[in-house]
Amino acid sequence: MSDHIQGEAHPGVEAAPAQTRGFRLNHCMLRVKDPEVSLRFYSRVFGMSVLRRLDFEEMKFSLYFLGDLEGREVPAEATERTVWTFQQRGLLELTHNWGTENEEGRIYHDGNAEPQGFGHICFNVPDLEAAVEWFDANDVEFIKRPDQGKMKNVVFVKDPDGYWIEVVQSDLIGEIGS
Amino acid sequence: MSDHIQGEAHPGVEAAPAQTRGFRLNHCMLRVKDPEVSLRFYSRVFGMSVLRRLDFEEMKFSLYFLGDLEGREVPAEATERTVWTFQQRGLLELTHNWGTENEEGRIYHDGNAEPQGFGHICFNVPDLEAAVEWFDANDVEFIKRPDQGKMKNVVFVKDPDGYWIEVVQSDLIGEIGS
Repeated sequence: MSDHIQGEAHPGVEAAPAQTRGFRLNHCMLRVKDPEVSLRFYSRVFGMSVLRRLDFEEMKFSLYFLGDLEGREVPAEATERTVWTFQQRGLLELTHNWGTENEEGRIYHDGNAEPQGFGHICFNVPDLEAAVEWFDANDVEFIKRPDQGKMKNVVFVKDPDGYWIEVVQSDLIGEIGS
Repeated sequence: MSDHIQGEAHPGVEAAPAQTRGFRLNHCMLRVKDPEVSLRFYSRVFGMSVLRRLDFEEMKFSLYFLGDLEGREVPAEATERTVWTFQQRGLLELTHNWGTENEEGRIYHDGNAEPQGFGHICFNVPDLEAAVEWFDANDVEFIKRPDQGKMKNVVFVKDPDGYWIEVVQSDLIGEIGS
């Protein structure tokens, strides 16, 4: 642990207590209307893989845990794979309540229109210009292109349910904010 | 990349195209009413550190990027640190629109009440029973304790804004779902 982390004066921050050792942010969950559409989008456009799928017959829903495969060795055996999945950092969990794919139009709330709450997920990419071309080639809906708005080189697109996805190239935004 | 990942038949899934190489899910953003309250909660109760804070004077908001420090060497220099932050996997970004801390009651929508969308964030912990004791010692609000409901050993608590946080111990839920 670096001193300068604890040394910074952010309101309310405490040094991580021993009781929290090993706590790890595993995922962020979004409901999706149609898993076929969402999985095509997140696998093709954003390169994510389904690390684990879990079905719940009685409650009629399925969960898809998505992440990139960089540096990851995914266990083949089912139980081991579930345990491994929950040990990862920063996955995206998509929840499909069976039957919603038959409804008309977008059915989920993006959190940016009122009532507000959740804002977006964000991907870092190695080449923002190439990523924008890739999104255009795949007819991705843009909210904001790199040269629009006050935040240059920060892109926002929509996923199939209308959730916002921020896209940045980290070395282009080193001077952002203060 | 393991063959069994691509070999599984999930609807819509494509093998990650070359154009997506290096794409990485960096964060999930939630708006918070009072950063002092939220940072106390996420640092003390969940052991997260502020890896980077960015202030935007003109637009009157601040961003706090939170993550655990395990295996992470945080750069001290500001620009380098911002770039590094956006290269991480799976952070939690908290957005504070200045002044909201003076409003009454909870002001943000959790995505689980109607209209639904975002569901929750999830932490994996090494010892669920100890974590529950820790949450009780910190007066954390429970939605579901380990022995309640259909999903045993899956806990849900609320953060200060009312967002749902799932808490699991991965090796206790290896048999969940099918």
